[in-house]
Amino acid sequence: MQFTFQKTSRVDEQELTKTIESLSDYQSHLQEVIAKGGYDSDEASINLPSDNELIESVMQMTGKKKSPNLKYIIVIGIGGSNLGTKAIYDALYGYYDVMRNDRFPKMIFLDTQDADVLSNLFSLLSSLSDPNEILINAISKSGSTTETVANFEVVFDMLKSRLSSIADRIVFTTNVGSKLHKAGNNNGIDVLNLPEKVGGRYSIFSAVGLFPLALLGIDIEELMTNAVNMRYICVNSPSVENPALVSASILFAQSKQGKNIHDNFIFAPQLESMGKWYRQLMGESIGKDGKGITPTVSIGSTDLHSVGQLYLGGPKDKTTTFIYTQHGGKEVIVPQQTHLGLIEMIQGKSISSLMRAIIQGTKLAYEKQELPYMEIVLESISVAEIATFMQFKMVEMMYLGKLFGVNTFDQPHVELYKTETKRILEES
Amino acid sequence: MQFTFQKTSRVDEQELTKTIESLSDYQSHLQEVIAKGGYDSDEASINLPSDNELIESVMQMTGKKKSPNLKYIIVIGIGGSNLGTKAIYDALYGYYDVMRNDRFPKMIFLDTQDADVLSNLFSLLSSLSDPNEILINAISKSGSTTETVANFEVVFDMLKSRLSSIADRIVFTTNVGSKLHKAGNNNGIDVLNLPEKVGGRYSIFSAVGLFPLALLGIDIEELMTNAVNMRYICVNSPSVENPALVSASILFAQSKQGKNIHDNFIFAPQLESMGKWYRQLMGESIGKDGKGITPTVSIGSTDLHSVGQLYLGGPKDKTTTFIYTQHGGKEVIVPQQTHLGLIEMIQGKSISSLMRAIIQGTKLAYEKQELPYMEIVLESISVAEIATFMQFKMVEMMYLGKLFGVNTFDQPHVELYKTETKRILEES
Repeated sequence: MQFTFQKTSRVDEQELTKTIESLSDYQSHLQEVIAKGGYDSDEASINLPSDNELIESVMQMTGKKKSPNLKYIIVIGIGGSNLGTKAIYDALYGYYDVMRNDRFPKMIFLDTQDADVLSNLFSLLSSLSDPNEILINAISKSGSTTETVANFEVVFDMLKSRLSSIADRIVFTTNVGSKLHKAGNNNGIDVLNLPEKVGGRYSIFSAVGLFPLALLGIDIEELMTNAVNMRYICVNSPSVENPALVSASILFAQSKQGKNIHDNFIFAPQLESMGKWYRQLMGESIGKDGKGITPTVSIGSTDLHSVGQLYLGGPKDKTTTFIYTQHGGKEVIVPQQTHLGLIEMIQGKSISSLMRAIIQGTKLAYEKQELPYMEIVLESISVAEIATFMQFKMVEMMYLGKLFGVNTFDQPHVELYKTETKRILEES
Repeated sequence: MQFTFQKTSRVDEQELTKTIESLSDYQSHLQEVIAKGGYDSDEASINLPSDNELIESVMQMTGKKKSPNLKYIIVIGIGGSNLGTKAIYDALYGYYDVMRNDRFPKMIFLDTQDADVLSNLFSLLSSLSDPNEILINAISKSGSTTETVANFEVVFDMLKSRLSSIADRIVFTTNVGSKLHKAGNNNGIDVLNLPEKVGGRYSIFSAVGLFPLALLGIDIEELMTNAVNMRYICVNSPSVENPALVSASILFAQSKQGKNIHDNFIFAPQLESMGKWYRQLMGESIGKDGKGITPTVSIGSTDLHSVGQLYLGGPKDKTTTFIYTQHGGKEVIVPQQTHLGLIEMIQGKSISSLMRAIIQGTKLAYEKQELPYMEIVLESISVAEIATFMQFKMVEMMYLGKLFGVNTFDQPHVELYKTETKRILEES
């Protein structure tokens, strides 16, 4: 991963240096949290990638549940319980699912309440006869998320009557001692633990993300090793070589200049769900006390033909992070002699080189319009690069929360609609 | 479709009345455009739904190309050339594709440049032996969109060597007289016409949307009839009974109060692509001359667990339109005696009633925080309601462009990156 910001971020160098320096105490704090280990502090999630016991427990559960017949991993969870897993699944597999009918296991994500989705899922499940074809992972930190519990209940009810040994094909992931934890124990359902202090939006390197990903066949040790490497840089480097420190400082400076929108403009459609993971990370971590930056996700080159006009010609209320990959997978070449002969300059060029030209063109257009941007270039869309990116962004958000002077780890206003919803349900 | 705004939109009634009145000349103009018919004016797209010749030509082409063996409709187009079609496909079918391996035809959308997607598509196409299993619809208004032409060239090249009669399985949709039009004629490929004055973001009711949708089996006459009905209300009603007039006036008033973000908060995940269609409609139509509102899409209840904290507790820089459906499809009930007994208040309730409680709870939370919102309630996710919604939003945007004093129908800044990209490609 390369991170660049020089000149294009349009932040005064002195201001940047001062902001970075202002974070040095907090940086020391993060170093202490890591040195101490464990899951007691607000920043507990930072200790996940180096937790060998965690990896071991997840690998053990994976060994117990994996099957050559496994076709569908059904992840029941919402928000922090599935966004990170979905981000990685879509990056590596999900985006291509409609073209790959024969690739398994596929993941199905049940998050919100949707009777149509459940009806379709029931039809699919009815076509299966071997319990080993499915694995259900229900994830709720608190153990009492309405959507998750309701979805689990209806799916479990449907399956229980058909497959007697279905309990073996279920795993719960939740806080130790939660109601869900106890219900798992009482019903012969295996349970994986999530440390109390690790919030959903920081939980991708906990059992929440690791178990379904390992079951899919993803090398979670590689994921963790790369996260540890990036964590080291983000926590220890005091300079502009530290992407988390720099990116947080730039976002903060831009926000003070009235740029209240942070657009992740991703030139790799398979990373759209990664953008959505970041939306939660930024939205919940710093959107409070009337403060915050609204995170948006744009996909290139598609959105150049959609909101590109607004970005280049509209109000200057955004700061942008361009995200793209250096190398694609297999190469595809436009014929040297095109069949229709409509555009000469594409003849004999690779599809990736066309994309690179579009990205370059877009960056030049942003510069002409004096629109600030940073750049993140991934070597490729790999487990290693994904881990690096996600760890970078989680530390970035801790620094940004500190700069905004908010509690980065709570989400008090989510209770507002929950309280109202609960009252309505109780009265109905 | 029901549209409501009273009280919750937090706009002064007198200001609203005045703004609506200021649009009466433009309303007369729209009436004249419809009375005159044809495709000469900037607002030409408004005449599409009542164009019987158009329906006939599309139905004729559909009759010629449809086949009981059809499995994949490959739509090659970007921005206005595919966003509307994808919105409707995903609403009715696409969102469930991963759970319905056996439902055909499926649509595959090729928009941006992506070698991985093309590699996967090639594998899929290699598994087919009958040309009637596929239909390729390449769509470009100008006939020279880089991404579209490049994608078409590589797919055509791959198929031509395998299937000799492949030209019969291709349809181009483009402006009369474009290079693509001529290339179609020269290569024995059928062509459907798009009127010159109909821009991509207003083209869903032209051959751009109608042909692939008709091929899929969607009743395009029902689509058009319902669009005509909504058009009548949006163009003729001078009062608060006119959703397009009211919604545009409220968005304009909110924007003057510093609310530079319009969030479509959609409590129906299958409508996410519809939100993306609206992003282009709003982004390109009014995002210019330094003016504009940034359109965002949130999905309920998922995003309550993501950006909900930001929306309820962060800066008050947004105006929201809640979109949801009155009735789902099949009903699914949580067991009266739940298996885990975690949340008593969900027992015996339907999944849809839980969703309604969450929506109601969210609205109350917005009101407590004094956050402005409008509401659009669709009877169900049907062809009729989708047509009604899309026609409403296209007329809304014409009114909003007039209020902003911009040219609603151009997109001059898109040329900025295109010019740079072209230069890079020519030099490489």
